[in-house]
Amino acid sequence: MYRTHTCGELRLENKNSEATLAGWVQTVRKISASLYFVDLRDRYGITQLCFTGDSIRLLDENPLGREFVLQATGMVNERSNKNANLPTGDIELLVTSFKILNKSAVPPFTIQDDTDGGDDLRMKYRFLDLRRNAVKKNLELRYAVNRAARNYLHQKQFMDIETPFLIKSTPEGARDFVVPSRMNPGQFYALPQSPQTFKQLLMVSGYDRYYQIVKCFRDEDLRADRQPEFTQIDCEMAFVEQEDILNMFEGMVKHIFKEVKGIDYTEKVERMTWEDAMWQFGNDKPDIRFGMKLLNLKKPATVYSDKQDQPALISGADFKVFDEAETVLAVAIPGCSEYTRKQTDELTEWVKRPQIGMKGLVFIKCNTDGTYKSSVDKFYSEERLKAIADAAGAAPGDLVLLLAGAEERTRKAASELRLEMAERLGLRKKEEFKLLWVLDFPLFEYDEEGNRWVARHHPFTSPKPSQIETMINNNPVIENAAEYLKHPYATIKANAYDMVLNGNEIGGGSIRIFQRELQEKMFAALGMDKEEQLHKFGFLLGAFEYGAPPHGGIAFGFDRLCAILGGSESIRDFIAFPKNNAGRDVMLDAPATIDDKQFEELQIKLDLKN
Amino acid sequence: MYRTHTCGELRLENKNSEATLAGWVQTVRKISASLYFVDLRDRYGITQLCFTGDSIRLLDENPLGREFVLQATGMVNERSNKNANLPTGDIELLVTSFKILNKSAVPPFTIQDDTDGGDDLRMKYRFLDLRRNAVKKNLELRYAVNRAARNYLHQKQFMDIETPFLIKSTPEGARDFVVPSRMNPGQFYALPQSPQTFKQLLMVSGYDRYYQIVKCFRDEDLRADRQPEFTQIDCEMAFVEQEDILNMFEGMVKHIFKEVKGIDYTEKVERMTWEDAMWQFGNDKPDIRFGMKLLNLKKPATVYSDKQDQPALISGADFKVFDEAETVLAVAIPGCSEYTRKQTDELTEWVKRPQIGMKGLVFIKCNTDGTYKSSVDKFYSEERLKAIADAAGAAPGDLVLLLAGAEERTRKAASELRLEMAERLGLRKKEEFKLLWVLDFPLFEYDEEGNRWVARHHPFTSPKPSQIETMINNNPVIENAAEYLKHPYATIKANAYDMVLNGNEIGGGSIRIFQRELQEKMFAALGMDKEEQLHKFGFLLGAFEYGAPPHGGIAFGFDRLCAILGGSESIRDFIAFPKNNAGRDVMLDAPATIDDKQFEELQIKLDLKN
Repeated sequence: MYRTHTCGELRLENKNSEATLAGWVQTVRKISASLYFVDLRDRYGITQLCFTGDSIRLLDENPLGREFVLQATGMVNERSNKNANLPTGDIELLVTSFKILNKSAVPPFTIQDDTDGGDDLRMKYRFLDLRRNAVKKNLELRYAVNRAARNYLHQKQFMDIETPFLIKSTPEGARDFVVPSRMNPGQFYALPQSPQTFKQLLMVSGYDRYYQIVKCFRDEDLRADRQPEFTQIDCEMAFVEQEDILNMFEGMVKHIFKEVKGIDYTEKVERMTWEDAMWQFGNDKPDIRFGMKLLNLKKPATVYSDKQDQPALISGADFKVFDEAETVLAVAIPGCSEYTRKQTDELTEWVKRPQIGMKGLVFIKCNTDGTYKSSVDKFYSEERLKAIADAAGAAPGDLVLLLAGAEERTRKAASELRLEMAERLGLRKKEEFKLLWVLDFPLFEYDEEGNRWVARHHPFTSPKPSQIETMINNNPVIENAAEYLKHPYATIKANAYDMVLNGNEIGGGSIRIFQRELQEKMFAALGMDKEEQLHKFGFLLGAFEYGAPPHGGIAFGFDRLCAILGGSESIRDFIAFPKNNAGRDVMLDAPATIDDKQFEELQIKLDLKN
Repeated sequence: MYRTHTCGELRLENKNSEATLAGWVQTVRKISASLYFVDLRDRYGITQLCFTGDSIRLLDENPLGREFVLQATGMVNERSNKNANLPTGDIELLVTSFKILNKSAVPPFTIQDDTDGGDDLRMKYRFLDLRRNAVKKNLELRYAVNRAARNYLHQKQFMDIETPFLIKSTPEGARDFVVPSRMNPGQFYALPQSPQTFKQLLMVSGYDRYYQIVKCFRDEDLRADRQPEFTQIDCEMAFVEQEDILNMFEGMVKHIFKEVKGIDYTEKVERMTWEDAMWQFGNDKPDIRFGMKLLNLKKPATVYSDKQDQPALISGADFKVFDEAETVLAVAIPGCSEYTRKQTDELTEWVKRPQIGMKGLVFIKCNTDGTYKSSVDKFYSEERLKAIADAAGAAPGDLVLLLAGAEERTRKAASELRLEMAERLGLRKKEEFKLLWVLDFPLFEYDEEGNRWVARHHPFTSPKPSQIETMINNNPVIENAAEYLKHPYATIKANAYDMVLNGNEIGGGSIRIFQRELQEKMFAALGMDKEEQLHKFGFLLGAFEYGAPPHGGIAFGFDRLCAILGGSESIRDFIAFPKNNAGRDVMLDAPATIDDKQFEELQIKLDLKN
């Protein structure tokens, strides 16, 4: 061992004993010709080394630079100038001998919390970026979450069972990464997008409670903050209903809060149907750390059929923008009634950005004196403005913002506007954590391009038991694309649930189909004929013939969960060796070309479009 | 929840309370028209269900078959015929109502320890094979080993840090699996053969103690009991010497023994140099549960230069087989002096099999009456036979077996013969565990085909400190292929170590090179020019410029470790979804063809040789 103690270990009680430390030179401070201080850093902390007398001569002969690897032996000494910010701040090591274990070139950026290195440089020199305390804390948090999840699941009798990485390509939705097989020329493995079918097979096999913290792969065009390889906490249970899963896994997340953040999350996790979430927040993963629910003034007839909009509040005023819009939504922003023209103009520009895509923004100022002022004063009397503001839940001093347009876009815009305003008002507090279960998702989504149904979650999710008949007894074919919402399949709700944390989906799952007939119907509904079903999922359909138990599960986005717990927007900060937005590892310079010999052995060649 | 208790849970103290169970029908026994017993099985155990009265009628209407999934409610009753072999054997459930949750076709083989299913059938229906108790116990053991390793390493301040799976192809020795990149046409990722360079980078980054239980990939022609994807317990430490690693990881394996097998392995793990292992056992992973060391009668001049053979014992007898052989080895087999002619003939045939490849076998019977009898009596006097037998450590009643031939083949054959005889004599006891460290491996191996050096362990393993000069100051080029053993590189020993358990290598590692200059010399010795070095390992060489600490590590073959602890020869039995010897998953039928669209998107095409 190169050391007797770590750089975070020595204390006053070690005074006058000898110690040997090894670590990296953080700083060298020359106090005088006969006194140098060196801060030595390792994973565990920083200890001050003090060079005087003989050791000075050695130091002058062997000058130290930043990030040199140093081994130093000496006596532990009480410091005269104690540093209360450092756990080792009461002591220093009076160096009697030392050895430079390795030199360092001058790093391309400083190894500090506030580094001077840009993103690209830090990605290229990731091994140096990883030395920074900010990054180290992220990876430590990640390990703590990993450990807490495992301990909880172990205690609940879950078994970690490894599933294969070289599987079969069955692209559904996202693209698979594929792996040519040298031993089976012309054939390919695929990397798993998730262990979904394997964990279901394990339930068929009777393993009862399975988990894995496992890498998954999706060859998607990378949106910001997506990675081609990512990690899931993947879980499955047999003989359970939705309620059992919700309880089990809110327990897990609460355990993680407690272990990792010291937070006692004792209240029951709120629950909300998908329809309510969309209706009230315009979003299936609402941030409920704050209110500001949407007021649905107007909606198309066919969507959210059991929800009542309030068109009377805006109709008959001859305001064409509202009259002609499919959907009109309002949101009350607390305490913003005194926004200036400049501010409301800026908000209007904000909603008109291409990412939001609205044509404009209507506002109502609910002045503290009880009067109402609006950008559409000439259409609506103060009385009508008050009625709208009241319905939106606005109090005196609030600002009501109204958006109008096509249903989907407007709802999304209202959701974004709500989040933006909350951000500006400081209502999205990093250290406040609010969980939410979103339930009763639609089973199917409509795919306009193919005029067909696609599985909203995945093809293994079961419909609500009361709607199995609807699914079995109706032909999935959509005769009239324009009226797809009238197809019975549009109303089928899934036994599916998402866990949402602070407006981010951190987990999602479902109770699965476990009957062969229903699974076949589902595949057929998605446009798979018998042959394709058997080619892709014959093993699963086969397994359902031999006593498949009722089962369900959930998968958590581990990278995302860690990022949110760490108060960050970016999952990259919580991955040791992430890829950039082009899917490249710029440190390794991967992907890269391969040798001719590899092509030859794999019996493939390039077919570049140019 | 579909159940109040598991099938392994109910006891006499639950008597007269109601319970609901869910599980699989193991057996249905019709005792009489008014009494049926059904054994219901789940992961946790088996409980006897008793159907009488009303429930009989229901049962007749809904007949149960093997592997049906059943939910049953009833009262817990004390059994009149208790079954002491079953934890639930004191009770039964008097069924009042039940529900068939799913039916099952008749399984293609019986779900029992002694199943009637052949290998191929069980691989195809792996989801049913996994139901068998024998397989379940293996996966439970695997999870227990996983858990014990993690707990030990956590307690020793190791951090689980995930490394990437989509990396760069740098084939060295084994072939990489590659993954075409759609977003970077013409370029490929590779799947890692191990996280070797990443864990070294993590040491450079200061993480100090890293571990991961991680999948690795090698596209090799599969020898028996190899898998294209396999799992390692992968570990690395900074600021350590070999001794620190040996102590840390024999601690881990002992902890696993204790936690998983209840074995207190308190003695220090034995250590042996690679030369001693080869000399005494003909093998670099000797099984030391028993003695039977080899006697080296004759060896080529250039190998094991510090080991003394005893050619005088056999020379001058005009026995050409020995005189002309490069190597002659003997091994004493305890208690076998009374082998019949038939038995010695059979042994002779055994060593002549192509897998062993010897031309014949010489034996000396050390009779209990003090006489010696040999197949080469006409060349050697009884006195000389006694001298050989004594040197081989044979006692009266033992049988000495002698092999002669080319060095490498003969040593291997002697090793195999020793193991075979020990197996026959019952000396390789499944429940006896004997660990061994093998140390001081050669740094290089000679590659005849290329007349060049290859790294015996891998290119990151450091030479013994005393031999760094030998490495730096000599030209690696081998001028005279016939005399490669005289090249200074042939004598360089590595800072490398293997952990051996009962004759199996379960782990291997080394102290790494951490100086750029030495690493470059190593790459050059392996025939890599500067350009290739930078293309493949530029990131690592770069990292060594910025303060790389001394470090080293080890990786355990997790599948193998589990198999040995489970008393099995085959790692497949300890993998939930293994591949067959052609690298196929016969359950999934993978690998398989992919769609034209996938080829088009990946911009590759097939180039089949016929």
